[in-house]
Amino acid sequence: MIRSSKTSSPTTEKDYLKFVPLGGLEEVGRNCSFFEYKHDIVVIDVGIQFPEEETPGIDYIIPNVSCLENKRENIRALIFTHGHYDHIHALPYLLEKLGNPVIYTAALTRALIEKRLEEFPRLPKAKFIVVKNGDTIKLCDHFEAEFFDIGHTIPDALGFILATPVGKMVHFGDFRLDMTKDGKPENLEIFERIGKLGVHSIFIDSVNSIREGFSLSERTVEENLENLFKNAKGRLLVATFASLLTRLAEIIKIADRLGRKVALNGRSMKDNIQIAQNLGYIKARKGQIIPLEEIHKYPDNKIMILTTGAQGEPNAGLMRIVNGEHRIVTLKSTDTVIFSSSVVPGNERSVQALQDNIARKVDELYNSKLLDIHTSGHAFSEDLKLVMKLTKPKFVVPIHAYYFMRKMVVKLAEAVGIEQGRVILMDNGQIAKLTADKFVITNEKVPAFYVMVDGLGIGDVEEVVLRDRMVLAEEGMVVIITTIDRASGRILKNPDIISRGFIYLKENKELLDEIRRRLRGLLARVPRAEADPDYVKMLIRDQIGQFLYQKTKRRPMILPVIIEI
Amino acid sequence: MIRSSKTSSPTTEKDYLKFVPLGGLEEVGRNCSFFEYKHDIVVIDVGIQFPEEETPGIDYIIPNVSCLENKRENIRALIFTHGHYDHIHALPYLLEKLGNPVIYTAALTRALIEKRLEEFPRLPKAKFIVVKNGDTIKLCDHFEAEFFDIGHTIPDALGFILATPVGKMVHFGDFRLDMTKDGKPENLEIFERIGKLGVHSIFIDSVNSIREGFSLSERTVEENLENLFKNAKGRLLVATFASLLTRLAEIIKIADRLGRKVALNGRSMKDNIQIAQNLGYIKARKGQIIPLEEIHKYPDNKIMILTTGAQGEPNAGLMRIVNGEHRIVTLKSTDTVIFSSSVVPGNERSVQALQDNIARKVDELYNSKLLDIHTSGHAFSEDLKLVMKLTKPKFVVPIHAYYFMRKMVVKLAEAVGIEQGRVILMDNGQIAKLTADKFVITNEKVPAFYVMVDGLGIGDVEEVVLRDRMVLAEEGMVVIITTIDRASGRILKNPDIISRGFIYLKENKELLDEIRRRLRGLLARVPRAEADPDYVKMLIRDQIGQFLYQKTKRRPMILPVIIEI
Repeated sequence: MIRSSKTSSPTTEKDYLKFVPLGGLEEVGRNCSFFEYKHDIVVIDVGIQFPEEETPGIDYIIPNVSCLENKRENIRALIFTHGHYDHIHALPYLLEKLGNPVIYTAALTRALIEKRLEEFPRLPKAKFIVVKNGDTIKLCDHFEAEFFDIGHTIPDALGFILATPVGKMVHFGDFRLDMTKDGKPENLEIFERIGKLGVHSIFIDSVNSIREGFSLSERTVEENLENLFKNAKGRLLVATFASLLTRLAEIIKIADRLGRKVALNGRSMKDNIQIAQNLGYIKARKGQIIPLEEIHKYPDNKIMILTTGAQGEPNAGLMRIVNGEHRIVTLKSTDTVIFSSSVVPGNERSVQALQDNIARKVDELYNSKLLDIHTSGHAFSEDLKLVMKLTKPKFVVPIHAYYFMRKMVVKLAEAVGIEQGRVILMDNGQIAKLTADKFVITNEKVPAFYVMVDGLGIGDVEEVVLRDRMVLAEEGMVVIITTIDRASGRILKNPDIISRGFIYLKENKELLDEIRRRLRGLLARVPRAEADPDYVKMLIRDQIGQFLYQKTKRRPMILPVIIEI
Repeated sequence: MIRSSKTSSPTTEKDYLKFVPLGGLEEVGRNCSFFEYKHDIVVIDVGIQFPEEETPGIDYIIPNVSCLENKRENIRALIFTHGHYDHIHALPYLLEKLGNPVIYTAALTRALIEKRLEEFPRLPKAKFIVVKNGDTIKLCDHFEAEFFDIGHTIPDALGFILATPVGKMVHFGDFRLDMTKDGKPENLEIFERIGKLGVHSIFIDSVNSIREGFSLSERTVEENLENLFKNAKGRLLVATFASLLTRLAEIIKIADRLGRKVALNGRSMKDNIQIAQNLGYIKARKGQIIPLEEIHKYPDNKIMILTTGAQGEPNAGLMRIVNGEHRIVTLKSTDTVIFSSSVVPGNERSVQALQDNIARKVDELYNSKLLDIHTSGHAFSEDLKLVMKLTKPKFVVPIHAYYFMRKMVVKLAEAVGIEQGRVILMDNGQIAKLTADKFVITNEKVPAFYVMVDGLGIGDVEEVVLRDRMVLAEEGMVVIITTIDRASGRILKNPDIISRGFIYLKENKELLDEIRRRLRGLLARVPRAEADPDYVKMLIRDQIGQFLYQKTKRRPMILPVIIEI
């Protein structure tokens, strides 16, 4: 229980609590956010975002925590709600910037973070305090947290009630309601208890706010999977996210019931299942999980392979199997392949190509469009309405989703009697000031633009570089190198022209010759007095650019180089 | 009626009919296909495909008809099934290659094709024979076609029964079944009649074969739209495809019933509605459609704007309105914006961004995820089963879709008693030989690889250019220009280094200096005898490439240039 007497003291208008969402592109607060009261700061999650079309070649995007760097000694706690990449994976890049604060999280999340940190051996040792459902911990002078279990697609997902001087803040992390097999919400006690506490604000995952009804029950998914598994005549290959540990645990149980051995394919699949086994979240009998090398020792109908690569990722386990490049597994027509996953937006075409290739090789292929064999980890509209109704907050802050989805929460809240003004739609970097009965978005902002990680570099890929990459990708480029005698301004040799991603110049000799001819004409017309290299370069860029556009209707990037000898 | 006595004469094994699907990437036969019997060829559709992620900067992809070019004089007919881009828009590029054959199509399709051809004034005049439901036409010695109406999302969609010497071939184009309001299929007479004719093969749109049940009725969509329209307090903005003329016609009718004037935004919207009005497919009362400039003359609740741009296309009508760049329309919070459209795979993110921006500006925004306000134009699994059952073909050829969807038709066919071997799964470029009771896919192939249109050029964007664009997009490039004295092999000046899309070199002076230092070292070590420019370039590419990878974990394209003076 929260001992509110200890932490909530009466406040004046000046003694406000700040809330600032940070990372997650437009998906506000998805990767990072923080609370601040006087000299105390609590940070929630430090995850990565995967890149967008507008950021080609970028590995990932991490939260911009620059506003915290010069008050890192005030960070009293870093809370991780659960172990998914978009909530934990940016830690190695930001651990030192945040001053290596004490981390509060559940056992599984800790193990996943430690696995991730192993890749960065030069970092200082992270300091963990492992918490679990019901734990109440005083984090610092002004904050006390009570943690509670919440339903998601990975075990050990936590929400928390943060007691602050201005009231209780409830953060659910990513969540959905638990559902009985016949689709009734269950395990609602925590929400009922929060309702009785009298809370200031709830911060609520609104990813699926536009989806009607309640979430599909994970048990329905499991039942449908079990039926599919029963009917499979040969081997079973199940492709899913390695992070869906709740479902993976259940699939391994079902395989055991059906007498199938389970082999794992893909590094993250092996790592995650190993970690979950170590902590008892996956309870496989001895000999139930076998090395992939041993699948040939068993009849096909006694084998299940769990594999990564359901998104059509080029180097993942499934792709190697399908392309015939896998050292052990080759598809057989008698295999049954099951995609127990959704398609991450942007991956539609690669997943389609992958499934087409599988369909050419096996007789039985199932995905979640054909059957309910996947469900989202995020609450649907009715889940959200029920949670708002039960928890009775003064304010609701939709987070983790795009604006359209967050705004939909306004309608859902109205339907359960929470008027418009009490649903707070924030953007990343905005500073909200909270007092006992107010939640005000100020005009103050902290930097929240993207920080991009590409290769080894952090934050060194600037907008100009990205813009260039996009032009290069769309139209290609032409380098024009002109060697000039410094004294006479005469062209010393035939200009060198290199193009890439434009048209294939080797086969367009006429165009090449015409460019050279025009260059010579152009340079001959430049008065000596104006033969400043920058001016000449601009001329070349304009004139040759225009010429190429006329000829090809394309606008390659033109890079003139003047070599003066 | 087909007068089969005239065209179907007894055949020997040697007198086979050929069927070859051509365009449409993996979506077999979607953009083009043809039948051939001795010296007679009938081509079906000549459409474009939109580009994929693997073809950056490409405008579109057109069918590869090279196998037809040297027998163009045998092409007796070009049949267009309906007026969508993926079925008609490649014609300007291929009209002459196909020898300007006689075109058989319906009135609206003809008008849309002529509009398209206007953009290419130098082409020869296309020759049309306009056909309609029930018309039977002898196309040449061996082929006779009977055309019939079929349900799709554009008026004048046609299927046809092609009487050939080996039997009757039925092609449905893109289609779905007409549905009553309560979801029962109707207008089934044509399928029943085909069943009585005794047909050889049906060629069947399998885009939605994996979707359960019957198609959603267009009438349900219209009802839902009408309810939304009734509740709108201010202006209505409806975004949809300009090609969904069936729905547009209905929306304009509803607007009339509700007393709203309709204004059009976007060139293709104006063009298509004009064409449909000219032919009587859209019957708007005089004064019902008003110029966009006049919307201010009416109260907001008497206005509906139909706009293009539902896919988040950067230059389309809706995007300009949302970005505040439109010369007439600015969004108001009282507007209701409705997306009556699906999201084309690959556009998910731009549509999300567009809808987020709209949600920030208006109170009411609806899309087809929230409500049934869009339905596909392609038959669902139950539609397909019913059509196969009624038409009783010897063979079924799933077309227009990816392999996974085409293969699903095998299961659907089995469910209505058509065994596996009678469902024919072909790839583009494969040649099938048909005799009275056989449908054999041969090992012969014709070229079917992509032909890409980029800017003005056709087919001049080669694989090497695309590969370069992808590298440029992912990693950027570095041009290294070294000027060398031909006689001494000495470097004449500090090497010029240009990079784009890599890291921002201006701010990485150390790296620049280090590249230059290494270059000088490298060139000093090359023995004079081996100072062949190509060898030196290779050295630079390898060594500097490796150095940059160590420093940045990126592999930009390295373009060494040696200028010898």
